[in-house]
Amino acid sequence: MKLATIENGTRDGGLVVVSMDGERYLAPGTVSTLQQAIECWDECAAEFQALSGRLESGDGAATGTVKIAAPLPRAWQWLDGSAFDTHGELMQRAFKMDPIEHDKPLMYQGLSHQFYGPTDDVPFVSEADGIDFEGEFGVVVDEVPMGTRSKDAMRYIRLLVQINDWSLRTIAPKEMKTGFGWVQAKPACSVAPFAVTPDELGDAWKDGRVNLDLEVRWNDERFGNANGGEMSVGFHELVAHAAATRTLCAGTIIGSGTVANANYREVGSSCISERRSIEMLDAGAPVTPFMSFGDSVFMEARNKDGSVLFGAIDQRVVED
Amino acid sequence: MKLATIENGTRDGGLVVVSMDGERYLAPGTVSTLQQAIECWDECAAEFQALSGRLESGDGAATGTVKIAAPLPRAWQWLDGSAFDTHGELMQRAFKMDPIEHDKPLMYQGLSHQFYGPTDDVPFVSEADGIDFEGEFGVVVDEVPMGTRSKDAMRYIRLLVQINDWSLRTIAPKEMKTGFGWVQAKPACSVAPFAVTPDELGDAWKDGRVNLDLEVRWNDERFGNANGGEMSVGFHELVAHAAATRTLCAGTIIGSGTVANANYREVGSSCISERRSIEMLDAGAPVTPFMSFGDSVFMEARNKDGSVLFGAIDQRVVED
Repeated sequence: MKLATIENGTRDGGLVVVSMDGERYLAPGTVSTLQQAIECWDECAAEFQALSGRLESGDGAATGTVKIAAPLPRAWQWLDGSAFDTHGELMQRAFKMDPIEHDKPLMYQGLSHQFYGPTDDVPFVSEADGIDFEGEFGVVVDEVPMGTRSKDAMRYIRLLVQINDWSLRTIAPKEMKTGFGWVQAKPACSVAPFAVTPDELGDAWKDGRVNLDLEVRWNDERFGNANGGEMSVGFHELVAHAAATRTLCAGTIIGSGTVANANYREVGSSCISERRSIEMLDAGAPVTPFMSFGDSVFMEARNKDGSVLFGAIDQRVVED
Repeated sequence: MKLATIENGTRDGGLVVVSMDGERYLAPGTVSTLQQAIECWDECAAEFQALSGRLESGDGAATGTVKIAAPLPRAWQWLDGSAFDTHGELMQRAFKMDPIEHDKPLMYQGLSHQFYGPTDDVPFVSEADGIDFEGEFGVVVDEVPMGTRSKDAMRYIRLLVQINDWSLRTIAPKEMKTGFGWVQAKPACSVAPFAVTPDELGDAWKDGRVNLDLEVRWNDERFGNANGGEMSVGFHELVAHAAATRTLCAGTIIGSGTVANANYREVGSSCISERRSIEMLDAGAPVTPFMSFGDSVFMEARNKDGSVLFGAIDQRVVED
């Protein structure tokens, strides 16, 4: 099942169920927003399933005639992990940081009151801040009780999403050194058009990981196609980590961190900073610049058979 | 003007205007929640003012007959500063940490999907996590455009609040070392009953600081009464810091960090960890334990004339 949110002049947009090919949609009658749907999933799911059936029979209006927002244009909570060890190791080696010692998954609390839609222009104050994209996957969970263990956490995962976690690289290391985490370095993220139920991935959803390539293009040039399967911990473990001392509200989004693979020389990277780290390790200095106003980024993970899954993020950075 | 939220079975509760003495309330007709009010403040403020007038004439129902929630039982964003240098310096010296180098205010993004009401029991998983209170002040802002400068930031401050930022001290330093900030160490905060407009403070609201004593009692014993005026930066500067690379949504709450004063030997502390730091510096080891299940904490900042301002946080910690 694919869900999307269309812009309708309200802050949370209008929830729609979308056909498998992403071409048509129908609006449910029971709830009007995705947040409401997550809050009463068991009651809503049957109607969504029925609408999915009608869409596959050819019913529905064309998605091309509406503007698609992020599935949750605002969420009550966004917690982003860093579960691809290759990414962390490359960054630490390049910046000569001490290895981050952690016996638990890495995670920070991020800005959740705004998520850009997949084709929105994304405004930034200054190119000097080091504008960078970060391709990731994420999950949207139902309410998760405090103290839920990882073996019980999978059942709370309702939807999977594909995210661009915008980052400002000039600010990030300074904020990291304070120990307080990131505020200025992590503005609002962008999200691909369709939030999908895990069954849509077939066996590509395994051990709490999205075993699909994330294609990343920068200004229409291939940048990377790392696979989401290489997380050192699965999403269920990230959910349990997040819920250790708090109840997670329905609609909490939890991210994987930048998708990265050990064979990064073949598959490339999902953020500029990682490519720059590789350049620093190889040649002593980075070569690739960060983004300029007007640059575009494209991110898409398709199903193994090439069919549309999350749809594509395809947007430009602009001066605020 | 004093605003409060009463429990009514909905997630956001019901907004009411409260009399100066906190004893009576009237519900507005234009909006039903505080979040809605902040989103259309200019249209709502006149009605709130009129209701305030009626309340001072003796109108309204008794607040004693309803359960008061946090002013915003959930918010889209909570950013907590650390603007009392005495607190940071004591903690760093006691824990032999390198001084945190920062040319900007310290701030982290915290859990905002849940705020406990002033008399709610607060559940924790384990006493071994080092349960601690942190008394602070905070502001609720209207939408603040990205890039707003501190000289322009004061105008967006709509309401002042008084907060207990619950902290888990066994976890906090480990999360700090990762550079990712706190997730498990910072569960949901509690908030005092009344959110007040800055004019309620008279000249105690000055330079973006709440120049009032915050009385803190632990198990009915005096713990501290530090003054909120000693912030190294004012709330307007915290707002500008937060808005440097993001638009702050209406209803964002920004905290001062633990209230602490240079004359801490006279005024005491607003969190246990700071008292333990002083004990470590004085005698080499902490003496005061963290909280146990069943312990209570009381926090209240009154106006200079002793009149009710934010009302009191008065609650117990319990086992989850």
